[in-house]
Amino acid sequence: MKMKPVNLPQAPRQLRTAIRKGTWTRTTAGLAPGYVQANLVILPGDLAFDFLLFCQRNPSPCLVLEVVEAGCAEPRYSAPGADLRTDLPRYLIYQQGELTHELADIREYWRDDLVSFLLGCAFSFQEALTQEGIPVRHLEEGKSDPTFVSNIETTPAGMFSGPMVVSMWPIHRQSLSRVVQITTRFPALHGAPVHIGDPGAIGIKDLSRPDYDDVVELKSGEVPVFWGCGVTPQEVALRSKPSLMITHSADRMFITNLRYTELAVF
Amino acid sequence: MKMKPVNLPQAPRQLRTAIRKGTWTRTTAGLAPGYVQANLVILPGDLAFDFLLFCQRNPSPCLVLEVVEAGCAEPRYSAPGADLRTDLPRYLIYQQGELTHELADIREYWRDDLVSFLLGCAFSFQEALTQEGIPVRHLEEGKSDPTFVSNIETTPAGMFSGPMVVSMWPIHRQSLSRVVQITTRFPALHGAPVHIGDPGAIGIKDLSRPDYDDVVELKSGEVPVFWGCGVTPQEVALRSKPSLMITHSADRMFITNLRYTELAVF
Repeated sequence: MKMKPVNLPQAPRQLRTAIRKGTWTRTTAGLAPGYVQANLVILPGDLAFDFLLFCQRNPSPCLVLEVVEAGCAEPRYSAPGADLRTDLPRYLIYQQGELTHELADIREYWRDDLVSFLLGCAFSFQEALTQEGIPVRHLEEGKSDPTFVSNIETTPAGMFSGPMVVSMWPIHRQSLSRVVQITTRFPALHGAPVHIGDPGAIGIKDLSRPDYDDVVELKSGEVPVFWGCGVTPQEVALRSKPSLMITHSADRMFITNLRYTELAVF
Repeated sequence: MKMKPVNLPQAPRQLRTAIRKGTWTRTTAGLAPGYVQANLVILPGDLAFDFLLFCQRNPSPCLVLEVVEAGCAEPRYSAPGADLRTDLPRYLIYQQGELTHELADIREYWRDDLVSFLLGCAFSFQEALTQEGIPVRHLEEGKSDPTFVSNIETTPAGMFSGPMVVSMWPIHRQSLSRVVQITTRFPALHGAPVHIGDPGAIGIKDLSRPDYDDVVELKSGEVPVFWGCGVTPQEVALRSKPSLMITHSADRMFITNLRYTELAVF
């Protein structure tokens, strides 16, 4: 259950400071409204080209907001002054594809050859819909959106391949066109839906059994709408069992200084 | 002077065959109307990550249509069956940043570590305007569009940095909004203009002295409109003096099987 925090600052810089100090260790959902939150993937430099190419080939689930090159942990474009090693509430360390540690600070794992990728997240998207009066069910219910491993194959790159992970939001039929229009404006935040209407057509057998996160139910007149999910590149990367991979922990994203409206392409 | 060829096939595959056989060695401007033409940059694998990242950071001049990984010369996404070593009319070979050869076939320079980048080109763009009755002056005059080195700095990546190269098309004031709307739909083909109206504001002193290509004149009521140009990444890459870099020769692009309408984002 995710409650909106009451005693936290809402500006990105102050929030990141609170997170760095350990004042906030939970989900970032609902924090810093209007600002873009990002998925984090950190990989050794020898995998960086293949991973960036994987993202280039699969823009729906993995739109790159920023790449922080080896030797640096500061995302100068999206959050100057921030430190990706300390400014997220929780990190996961994977070694040879196995989760080995979950921790609040990754400085002891930092190496000069690590490259950091910040990828678009649908948290930033939600506001674009609610501002137009289109309800976002999982937000209303204080949940995370249900996420499924689909049968849509991503386009491989180097060692990276696998199925696309998708998230599902129930949308009323009368809002379908508008939702496609609004989300199309934000390709960096997953863009338009990858599928509308038939879970079975993309390999999802049971909407009440998501692979990750929470269950939300369809109400009368609502249709399941699916977007590429930012968990995809992590899932795909993990299958390749890199020697080291560091990610944010689910729902505990990196809060950038970018406003989601800046990412609209029209 | 570029005349539309009369005895050439117009389908991409047949055109590439004619080019491979040496039947056609001149500009590809005006060939295969409706199909996307691409800039080609080939670099050794050890520069591939930095170059891909440079493109990711500078989407206006350098939108990546396809990356062909080391060990392969077939662009499977944009032109299955084609061979990037033979299917362009003319290539330039740069060694340590110096132009050393211009030739019709690069098989003798091919190495298994070379990575090929196909980048969007405004040739594909022209039709989107002419189809709406908006004249494209350099096409009408059988020229190449004038191209300038601007004072807009690109965002560096690794060894790659430098100014953005822009191309200029004269647009009548009454069509400005429509031209922005139409081109915004095609981010892969440079997207919306980077500047409208004041050459001096982006470091261009004299429109009658382009750094590359031809001069076109502004008619009464017309405004100079500037787009990021696909020559930018080549210019920038050359400054870094890579050991080897192979590109297409100006105006002799790679003709893909993609229709430009497929690249519209809305």
